[in-house]
Amino acid sequence: MRVAFLGLGAMGYPMARNLKRDHEVSVWNRTTEVARNHVRDHGTNLLATLEEFRASDVIISMVPTSREVDELIDRLEERLAPGLLWIDATSGDPVTSRKSGQRLAGRGVDFVDAPVTGGTPGAEKGTLTVMVGGSAENFQRAESVLGAAASKVVHVGALGSGHALKAINNAMLGANLWMAAESLLIARRFGITLPIALEVINAGSGRSNATENLLPSRLLRDEWPLTFKLALHDKDVRIAASMAHEQHLSSPMLALTSQLFTAALHEMPHADYVEVIKLAARINGEEW
Amino acid sequence: MRVAFLGLGAMGYPMARNLKRDHEVSVWNRTTEVARNHVRDHGTNLLATLEEFRASDVIISMVPTSREVDELIDRLEERLAPGLLWIDATSGDPVTSRKSGQRLAGRGVDFVDAPVTGGTPGAEKGTLTVMVGGSAENFQRAESVLGAAASKVVHVGALGSGHALKAINNAMLGANLWMAAESLLIARRFGITLPIALEVINAGSGRSNATENLLPSRLLRDEWPLTFKLALHDKDVRIAASMAHEQHLSSPMLALTSQLFTAALHEMPHADYVEVIKLAARINGEEW
Amino acid sequence: MRVAFLGLGAMGYPMARNLKRDHEVSVWNRTTEVARNHVRDHGTNLLATLEEFRASDVIISMVPTSREVDELIDRLEERLAPGLLWIDATSGDPVTSRKSGQRLAGRGVDFVDAPVTGGTPGAEKGTLTVMVGGSAENFQRAESVLGAAASKVVHVGALGSGHALKAINNAMLGANLWMAAESLLIARRFGITLPIALEVINAGSGRSNATENLLPSRLLRDEWPLTFKLALHDKDVRIAASMAHEQHLSSPMLALTSQLFTAALHEMPHADYVEVIKLAARINGEEW
Amino acid sequence: MRVAFLGLGAMGYPMARNLKRDHEVSVWNRTTEVARNHVRDHGTNLLATLEEFRASDVIISMVPTSREVDELIDRLEERLAPGLLWIDATSGDPVTSRKSGQRLAGRGVDFVDAPVTGGTPGAEKGTLTVMVGGSAENFQRAESVLGAAASKVVHVGALGSGHALKAINNAMLGANLWMAAESLLIARRFGITLPIALEVINAGSGRSNATENLLPSRLLRDEWPLTFKLALHDKDVRIAASMAHEQHLSSPMLALTSQLFTAALHEMPHADYVEVIKLAARINGEEW
Repeated sequence: MRVAFLGLGAMGYPMARNLKRDHEVSVWNRTTEVARNHVRDHGTNLLATLEEFRASDVIISMVPTSREVDELIDRLEERLAPGLLWIDATSGDPVTSRKSGQRLAGRGVDFVDAPVTGGTPGAEKGTLTVMVGGSAENFQRAESVLGAAASKVVHVGALGSGHALKAINNAMLGANLWMAAESLLIARRFGITLPIALEVINAGSGRSNATENLLPSRLLRDEWPLTFKLALHDKDVRIAASMAHEQHLSSPMLALTSQLFTAALHEMPHADYVEVIKLAARINGEEW
Repeated sequence: MRVAFLGLGAMGYPMARNLKRDHEVSVWNRTTEVARNHVRDHGTNLLATLEEFRASDVIISMVPTSREVDELIDRLEERLAPGLLWIDATSGDPVTSRKSGQRLAGRGVDFVDAPVTGGTPGAEKGTLTVMVGGSAENFQRAESVLGAAASKVVHVGALGSGHALKAINNAMLGANLWMAAESLLIARRFGITLPIALEVINAGSGRSNATENLLPSRLLRDEWPLTFKLALHDKDVRIAASMAHEQHLSSPMLALTSQLFTAALHEMPHADYVEVIKLAARINGEEW
Repeated sequence: MRVAFLGLGAMGYPMARNLKRDHEVSVWNRTTEVARNHVRDHGTNLLATLEEFRASDVIISMVPTSREVDELIDRLEERLAPGLLWIDATSGDPVTSRKSGQRLAGRGVDFVDAPVTGGTPGAEKGTLTVMVGGSAENFQRAESVLGAAASKVVHVGALGSGHALKAINNAMLGANLWMAAESLLIARRFGITLPIALEVINAGSGRSNATENLLPSRLLRDEWPLTFKLALHDKDVRIAASMAHEQHLSSPMLALTSQLFTAALHEMPHADYVEVIKLAARINGEEW
Repeated sequence: MRVAFLGLGAMGYPMARNLKRDHEVSVWNRTTEVARNHVRDHGTNLLATLEEFRASDVIISMVPTSREVDELIDRLEERLAPGLLWIDATSGDPVTSRKSGQRLAGRGVDFVDAPVTGGTPGAEKGTLTVMVGGSAENFQRAESVLGAAASKVVHVGALGSGHALKAINNAMLGANLWMAAESLLIARRFGITLPIALEVINAGSGRSNATENLLPSRLLRDEWPLTFKLALHDKDVRIAASMAHEQHLSSPMLALTSQLFTAALHEMPHADYVEVIKLAARINGEEW
């Protein structure tokens, strides 16, 4: 199929490359330089301007937030042909994606939200999990496109559900991460070294993706890569908190997580999300 | 070695059986009936009264809390011979275990705290992780005893550190569990089914031991076994909270977890710890 | 002036009566019976149907939430004459009131949000404080109308600010109330009686409107009147929480208060707001 | 009566002066200079060394924490005569004061805990409220001594109850203060000025001692006096939190307050307690 891939960030870049195995992929990026590199290195086609997408059957967008998706739709709406499938792989906002879906439906364009999980390693290896929200038919179309970039493509519910579940998943990660930080600070004060504490917890029942995959590199090897901006993770936690609010649910731990992430963001506006644990230390006069 | 195993609960029962492979094991239990069954089924020796422990080189205690350990020490103290090793596998209290260690040191008895993680499956299969607090020498003695019951015996620090880390681990589990419950409630309200939500989260970055191993059986198969009493888990969360307090640390998420577990305990005094998620639902007028 | 007063609840009923001193007041209520009583007892004019408001210079609405205000506007919009002043004394939502203001401005109608504080005693005595959001001119018009019902009419800011500040005020009250409940439970467990605890706190620095005016009647005289529905108070706390969210603020105590009020509402959907303290007791297996 | 007053801090200094009206007062202070000034300005007697207290019927201690009280008892214990009354006006720890009471009872010395509330203005004017823990008889003795310095002397319960209630009172103040700060930040972001917000809240139901007496000087006149150290207030909040923990109570708002105060203390170890509101601003990238 002819796929236009819009947005070559840390996740989109390798994902577009993997899709090339099965599809004819054209790429666009806000900074065109990045798109040129992709074309040079991976044999994709260049969309020098957005408007060149027209020869495509499928558009995949993977941009920072739903706002940028909306801007893309604004620019392209007039030119979209009925029957086109738009797959939004952004970690977006479910409410906005429902509106986008209605808007595009008016032009006969099918829309699914399809955020991914698995991190940059999963994007590189093509082993992402994609959570798709939309109708059963649109899911099937999306699934057939995404196979080359993902090991798991799941239909999670109606339009918006993919973004909803992604936000919830990231909020859980956020809570698990912060709680791990508090816990490790207590252990360390008690005289238990971080390597020992992590080893035991990861062999024990307190383990999570945070303790198994995120904290060892930061805490044991002092590596603090920028993998996903705190600003974006905070956005996801806030989306989850908004959902709870809209549903009139009492969710005290999510609420606390959201406040802590926002406090961390105010302290470290350009940080990677894992660096929230620095605030957990800082409020105790500690460093990692 | 001759091992006296005191306390044949859900964890102790299979652990004593596994130790039988390498050691001559005598068993005692508050309800003697259970000890008799162990002797009959697994060829261990019966300690009809506690005082018969005397022919042992090692005592292993595995009782509900440090209070029961203290009571055992009270009853046996006078009879303990210098050189004996006492391994306390209870999920105990670090402060109490330090006092117990001093008390026993006065009689020439070596003491280590050695709580385990891995749950009843790990206890059955002999694949527990044991976190040992105590001197390097005492750790080595304990390690040589515990091999048949554990796949990992880790020296985590000075006396009390084992209990400390166990409490911390369980507090983390508690937070991860509660946060997962809140998250799944939000997802379900949004129209995402629990099986789908768990599948995606467990393929995603929000996963934890809670979502991978504890919640599927409860939420997908409606099985609510009594594996570890909420009263005991609450005790562990409270021990972790006490440590944070003693160390004058600011740990808001642990503090919240502790309040939520205590509220759940007041609501369901006889529940299994995973049933805390019922309170997370109940405060939203929901059931699982 | 000719005032149409819409909504004769616990606050509106006495407020309309007090306005009668200075103005020619016509009253409407969803349940007409209540309006008839008002006319009979206080000499106001009956608006048997909403549409009869036409002979008025000023409309004052005082209904449960902004939703009901919106419905009133829907019904009357076509008939509103330029130059009319609409004072919304509802404890409403600032975002909605801004929209309502724009909508009415389109018809030449001036709109201010003007929620009150002071409770039913203040409404009875005409000693309410009114917090008015809107332009300086509209504030002046509103001030000249409200004098007979209030001892203080304050211009708090642009349109919506009145509702904003009212929600914030109620959220503060909510937090102070819950914290007082926790504190009194601790004191009582320690053997300090509630009368003694309240006496000392009210002579001390921990005092608040909650401890001085709300808790004594409930806790010392066991009187639990329905003064303001928990459902409405929860709505206000949620409005405050939404404002914090929109402003991207980290406000952990407000967030917790909101979760606790919502949990209480799920438990006691028809309760008075002060009854939230019953949940604070209940999660401890206690009663007041 | 002959009163030895130990500890001439911000509260003790004026309190000792007021007691002079009814009693023969001797004063001691760790920094003797301060005691000399008191003698010079107020006609009290100097205790150049602690041991000179002997000619007294009553000892009043008013030092930073129960630790300093313990040290005083250590130094004086041997010299205390049966029948002496020791009034501890420190904001102390109930558990420690119970132990101190037992210790002194062994020497025939009567002990009450008698912390005060009312702040430095109350201490200056002799209008403090004193909350006394101890037996009915000891309370009566204490009451007859304290009249000149207090407008209210209340028997709150058994030994330790005074300290307990003081800690609880201060924890409430702490929560009310922090919540007010969050609320004012939201209001200000919404365009409502601090003077207006405080005026309305203080005429409304959200008011508390914090909004009426503490915040106006800091926020409207930018005065940040050192009235009571954050380190001491944090100690009181922690005492309240410990009591809740010992009583196995679920008190989420107190728990959160305690974490926030401790975080503030780590950030500003020498601050006045009202300065916690600077942390509430800081986590939002704001200043007052």
